[in-house]
Amino acid sequence: SLQKAIAVIPGDGIGQEVVPEGRRVLQAVSQKHGIDLEFVDFDFASADYYQAHGTMLPEDWFDSLRGFDAIFFGAVGWPDVVPDHISLWGSLLQFRRSFDQYINLRPCRLLPGVKSPLVGYGPGDVDFYVVRENTEGEYSSIGGKMFEGTDREIVVQETVMTRTGVDRVLKFAFELADSRPNQHLTSATKSNGISITMPYWDERVKIMSENYPEVRQDQFHIDILTANFVLKPNHFDVVVASNLFGDILSDLGPACTGTIGVAPSANINPDGTFPSLFEPVHGSAPDIAGQGIANPIGQIWSGAMMLDHFGETEASADVLEGIESVLSSGDASILTPDLGGRGSTSSLGEAIASTI
Amino acid sequence: SLQKAIAVIPGDGIGQEVVPEGRRVLQAVSQKHGIDLEFVDFDFASADYYQAHGTMLPEDWFDSLRGFDAIFFGAVGWPDVVPDHISLWGSLLQFRRSFDQYINLRPCRLLPGVKSPLVGYGPGDVDFYVVRENTEGEYSSIGGKMFEGTDREIVVQETVMTRTGVDRVLKFAFELADSRPNQHLTSATKSNGISITMPYWDERVKIMSENYPEVRQDQFHIDILTANFVLKPNHFDVVVASNLFGDILSDLGPACTGTIGVAPSANINPDGTFPSLFEPVHGSAPDIAGQGIANPIGQIWSGAMMLDHFGETEASADVLEGIESVLSSGDASILTPDLGGRGSTSSLGEAIASTI
Ligand SMILES: CC(C)[C@H](C(=O)O)[C@@H](O)C(=O)O
Ligand SMILES: CC(C)[C@H](C(=O)O)[C@@H](O)C(=O)O
Repeated sequence: SLQKAIAVIPGDGIGQEVVPEGRRVLQAVSQKHGIDLEFVDFDFASADYYQAHGTMLPEDWFDSLRGFDAIFFGAVGWPDVVPDHISLWGSLLQFRRSFDQYINLRPCRLLPGVKSPLVGYGPGDVDFYVVRENTEGEYSSIGGKMFEGTDREIVVQETVMTRTGVDRVLKFAFELADSRPNQHLTSATKSNGISITMPYWDERVKIMSENYPEVRQDQFHIDILTANFVLKPNHFDVVVASNLFGDILSDLGPACTGTIGVAPSANINPDGTFPSLFEPVHGSAPDIAGQGIANPIGQIWSGAMMLDHFGETEASADVLEGIESVLSSGDASILTPDLGGRGSTSSLGEAIASTI
Repeated sequence: SLQKAIAVIPGDGIGQEVVPEGRRVLQAVSQKHGIDLEFVDFDFASADYYQAHGTMLPEDWFDSLRGFDAIFFGAVGWPDVVPDHISLWGSLLQFRRSFDQYINLRPCRLLPGVKSPLVGYGPGDVDFYVVRENTEGEYSSIGGKMFEGTDREIVVQETVMTRTGVDRVLKFAFELADSRPNQHLTSATKSNGISITMPYWDERVKIMSENYPEVRQDQFHIDILTANFVLKPNHFDVVVASNLFGDILSDLGPACTGTIGVAPSANINPDGTFPSLFEPVHGSAPDIAGQGIANPIGQIWSGAMMLDHFGETEASADVLEGIESVLSSGDASILTPDLGGRGSTSSLGEAIASTI
């Protein structure tokens, strides 16, 4: 039977609450399908760890993690203890870059039983992927400050795009679009305003599109693209975007499908050289942490994406069906408050696990 | 009586169609209020001009325009003739920077008679301003390409923030928030991912907020902020943002209030050293240009913002009332298709003018 070793990093806040539910469902489904998942827990990449050690990660984090088949990740960030840019660059963003997880794949799907905030859209009407570049672009570590503390103070930060980085995410996105029934790819740009990097992005899209004659391709500037997510979300099939634009679109997309609490993501190293990382789109949510009311579906669905990544498509489909059937039930005693229920993180996690 | 000289630049596409309607309404309202508006037309800043001259602007554009009290602007961009980054950096973005129009003020208001795409929101429920930094930030002209044409090709572009630039937009936004009943200011950030410029932005917000103890202040990362525009648009009062984030939020906000066709903007030089520029949020819309069906309300409302800028608040209020009463009528023979009608640009413009 398939054997996989999973590093589990719950992180901060509701990460601690939803990860156990994700694991519960993974355990149920792996038992059913005879998959042997070994989980190993790590307490680093958290504010607690930072408080105890003064860093987000131990020195040997890279070697500790690199042998795993995947990382099952909760959420990081606890601004009362450590500023977000320190905690995130010291953990999640570090993993993405060091493990060359250059694809961030984020489905946006309007699920049965989830109310869309948009007038006139029901389950099945919205179903697209955001493919986000995940290692470069606007998330750069180059830049600095000058004339510090004076009226002339200035800060600069580079956006960096490489041909390698742009082409590989475009290729992934075109392949994905090519494999889907609609064969439609939308590129997020802003080449009218961001006059150097974004025209370059457009140029590479144009060149890549020549390899995919079957794929219908269009592009929107990011401003009107966000407007169109609200005005015609059913227009989209695969949306490819730079790191920052993908970040924005993959929160906005799930919001248009009701709640970001259900949205999953896969940070993929397609070459398989390093472990890929699976995490919900939502963050650590300090405002609701500790109350046991966080929606675990984003985490559980991320587990399903991990199974897909392992080639276990049937097990993955089982998890998705479990999620959909519990959502469809509309049982308010089980569903979390963001879904209109009065249930808890664990009531929802248990209900999904027990469908399997 | 008040005398003002207005430079009129219709630009491309539907800019040509909506500007005359804006003028029609301005003429009606200025007559009523005894304001003396002199309009002077310019054909530059358009693809036609570019085709004839190879540049977007004549050499003496700065001196031709600087003496005017305001610029009444349509839309620029016609990618079939000239790439967007060339047409925009050669006109609109040039004006904003050269005339130091460092505030881009964009109201988002759910008007009567306009259907919101969001479930459960009606007229009056959404009413906020986006205050966008308009001269620096992500819209920089610094950067370039290296290893061109090879696999090692890289492009970089700087984001530049200056203390002067950040503080003055924050000050404007805090003053505006302070003057409104809700006294609530939201800052758009992304300091968890964009690790140099955005923490700097947060730092300046914190310092500026100390001068405004009456203003409640919060901040959201841009990803979840776009989600919240959809999920709780009534949370917002004044939203202050960098150039790029403001660009995104001021298309998304109007989309959440039904159509970007009605959204206006004011590019303001608050010092009064240079003319301010008033333009709709929408672009030249090649897809519907030439059909006479573009919604002129964004342009007309921009005219109202111009009157406000001149201190003519009553005349401005008249225009707003005219817009609202025609929208409320729901007369499909007058309203443009984006509003669910079968009317034309001019039927809607005439109807608004005739209320005055
Ligand atoms: C046309 C474009 C360069 C411009 C911008 O990005 O500023 C427009 O989108 C706007 O919002 O005024
Ligand atoms: C926490 C933050 C740094 C991160 C990002 O911006 O990538 C998050 O928003 C995400 O989308 O995974």
